[in-house]
Amino acid sequence: MTITKQEYDFNRNVIVQPVGRGAAGRQDSVNLSYGFPATELLPVEALNQAALESLVRDRAQALHYTGGQGLDIIKNWQLRRLRKFGIQANDEHYLAVYGANQGIELTARVLINPGDTVWTEAATYFNAINMFRYAGAEIVGLPMDVNGVDVDKVEDELKRAAAGEGALPKFIYVMPNFQNPTGTTLPRARRERLAKLARIYNFYILEDDAYGELRFEGEDLPAIASYAPDRTIYLGTFSKTLGPGLRFGCVIAPREVADRMRCLTLNSATSPFTQEILGHLLQNYDYDAQIARLTACYEARRDALAEALGSTFGDEVRFQLPEGGFFLWLAFQEETDTLRLAELAAERGVQTVPGRGFFAADGSYPFIRLCFSYCGEREIEEGVRRLAAAYFDSRR
Amino acid sequence: MTITKQEYDFNRNVIVQPVGRGAAGRQDSVNLSYGFPATELLPVEALNQAALESLVRDRAQALHYTGGQGLDIIKNWQLRRLRKFGIQANDEHYLAVYGANQGIELTARVLINPGDTVWTEAATYFNAINMFRYAGAEIVGLPMDVNGVDVDKVEDELKRAAAGEGALPKFIYVMPNFQNPTGTTLPRARRERLAKLARIYNFYILEDDAYGELRFEGEDLPAIASYAPDRTIYLGTFSKTLGPGLRFGCVIAPREVADRMRCLTLNSATSPFTQEILGHLLQNYDYDAQIARLTACYEARRDALAEALGSTFGDEVRFQLPEGGFFLWLAFQEETDTLRLAELAAERGVQTVPGRGFFAADGSYPFIRLCFSYCGEREIEEGVRRLAAAYFDSRR
Repeated sequence: MTITKQEYDFNRNVIVQPVGRGAAGRQDSVNLSYGFPATELLPVEALNQAALESLVRDRAQALHYTGGQGLDIIKNWQLRRLRKFGIQANDEHYLAVYGANQGIELTARVLINPGDTVWTEAATYFNAINMFRYAGAEIVGLPMDVNGVDVDKVEDELKRAAAGEGALPKFIYVMPNFQNPTGTTLPRARRERLAKLARIYNFYILEDDAYGELRFEGEDLPAIASYAPDRTIYLGTFSKTLGPGLRFGCVIAPREVADRMRCLTLNSATSPFTQEILGHLLQNYDYDAQIARLTACYEARRDALAEALGSTFGDEVRFQLPEGGFFLWLAFQEETDTLRLAELAAERGVQTVPGRGFFAADGSYPFIRLCFSYCGEREIEEGVRRLAAAYFDSRR
Repeated sequence: MTITKQEYDFNRNVIVQPVGRGAAGRQDSVNLSYGFPATELLPVEALNQAALESLVRDRAQALHYTGGQGLDIIKNWQLRRLRKFGIQANDEHYLAVYGANQGIELTARVLINPGDTVWTEAATYFNAINMFRYAGAEIVGLPMDVNGVDVDKVEDELKRAAAGEGALPKFIYVMPNFQNPTGTTLPRARRERLAKLARIYNFYILEDDAYGELRFEGEDLPAIASYAPDRTIYLGTFSKTLGPGLRFGCVIAPREVADRMRCLTLNSATSPFTQEILGHLLQNYDYDAQIARLTACYEARRDALAEALGSTFGDEVRFQLPEGGFFLWLAFQEETDTLRLAELAAERGVQTVPGRGFFAADGSYPFIRLCFSYCGEREIEEGVRRLAAAYFDSRR
């Protein structure tokens, strides 16, 4: 009595695609692809010590839903830390999440109704594009230059949309510091102006600051959230500084947004067990010293990468030195099939990410993203040699 | 130049409501409300020992996105354990989640398009109702009796819907063991029949087995997933056996569902740091002994609760002894405003959950859910005395 043989109607926005950490490479592959921190700088010893100290006491509370004191300690620490970027927030704006990714997902689920439009930087974090699409959004990429998103042009687009030519955005997703993938940093004046536009045109800004602590040069800039706390959802994370494996980040959001997010997570996405350990660590940890270790290391690796690229590729490529973060964005001057190039490079033993994945629209993009955080300098040089060999071979 | 003063159009399905662990009670309140495990039976020492042992080795991998060996150990352990309930699954069906709650959320997001219909047991887990609504679903409650959902009537409803009278469900949410809140257990024949109906009428079953390990009496029954693995999304969790604070559960789903869920979570919702510790624990832990300790304790508490209810309330209430789990469902024989009664009881120092919250539709429900897992027997007796005092006072 099977009455139906039709296909099941799954959520139509959730398109199945591979989830993983990149194509399998050779055993001796140099990994310049996914954004992992340097293993040797993860504070393994300090976290182990915190675990030993915090768990020898009776920690039954850490095994209940509600947890112990860990979460409050972390929350207060993060709220204090964020003042560095001009953010004055309190409990009602704060939400613990299992990484910036969850912050992106919650924003999409709270702000989007199917058919809504989201604006992003033209080249942007691929998981964010997916999360917005899963929520039913249309994505529009915004023009960028060497200073990130071009706010003049954004204003033009907003005016046009307000005049009925196109849809106004529900929110604009930006990564103002050492953007993934382009490495660009949004100048102070653009941040301030974008914040103003959000108020005028009734949209939110999703400010993903996953890399903001990792500045090698120049001065810290105020977060966009500092200019429009009522219009900005700010995402921070320990993933790039203490380790992604902790799965611990935070959202700072206007109350009407944070309250909705809390309904979706029931306040229980992060592990109280980890909270106890992380909270104990933060009470005594010299975080600035950790940041100094990381930035010194990554700056040297960035420079090694830039030098290797200059000496092997010459005029064939252009790139800009990022002031921080994990990524360098390599632009090819000649027409180059970078999807194919990345495959050839992987065969030669270097993993990279071709530009295509960072754009919402199909097309041919002459870019490759290189991550300089994970590998040592000699390895980076070897990786660039392999990439260059693949490139020059393919042009013969 | 403020062009818009209109309200922001948030996701219309996400209705803000309080999130929390119940109303504040008196300092000496007896907590018979939310479903917490017994603190004194949480394996604090064993977990601490596992943390000490697993973290003294170099555990940098536990701080990366991808984690170390912990997740594989847990996965293999859970897949093996589930054979106890007749579930034969493998890697491609498995997904680690931060609790059964995340499994519910992911199911809703993968299966529901706005406007779809979901069927649930008439009285059901309130967070599940919310998750389904956030995804845009209409909820229909199914008739229950002392053996859980009435599958005869479900079949009648399916026939009617297939004939065009009402919408067929995208999925049916059931908790077959020691259901929350009613404590009922679905008999074997009903499980098998529900599984068959799912194939005939092209719906999925979301089988929430949060309490299945906690059986005090009778024999383990096969999971619904054992009858229709191609049609069932099974949820398991360590929250009720090792501690909710670990934030660790699993989904076993047909591949086409699991693949979509993986896209939503990026495989990274649970903490690799916790995975290492939990994985290490499971390698040597006598889980059956822990289950024996829990069930012995909870059975005694259930009996203490039942006896206290009988001796104080007499014929004023009806209830059925659950064969396991955390909850007893108290039905008042006289018309009773249980929302008001729960308030009066809280004032007298006992926390309970009035029936209203477990039903999708507004109405007056003469039930109160009592949780017997968290408090000791003397405390339970005191709690029932306070509840009875509130009840009989209110009737004078």
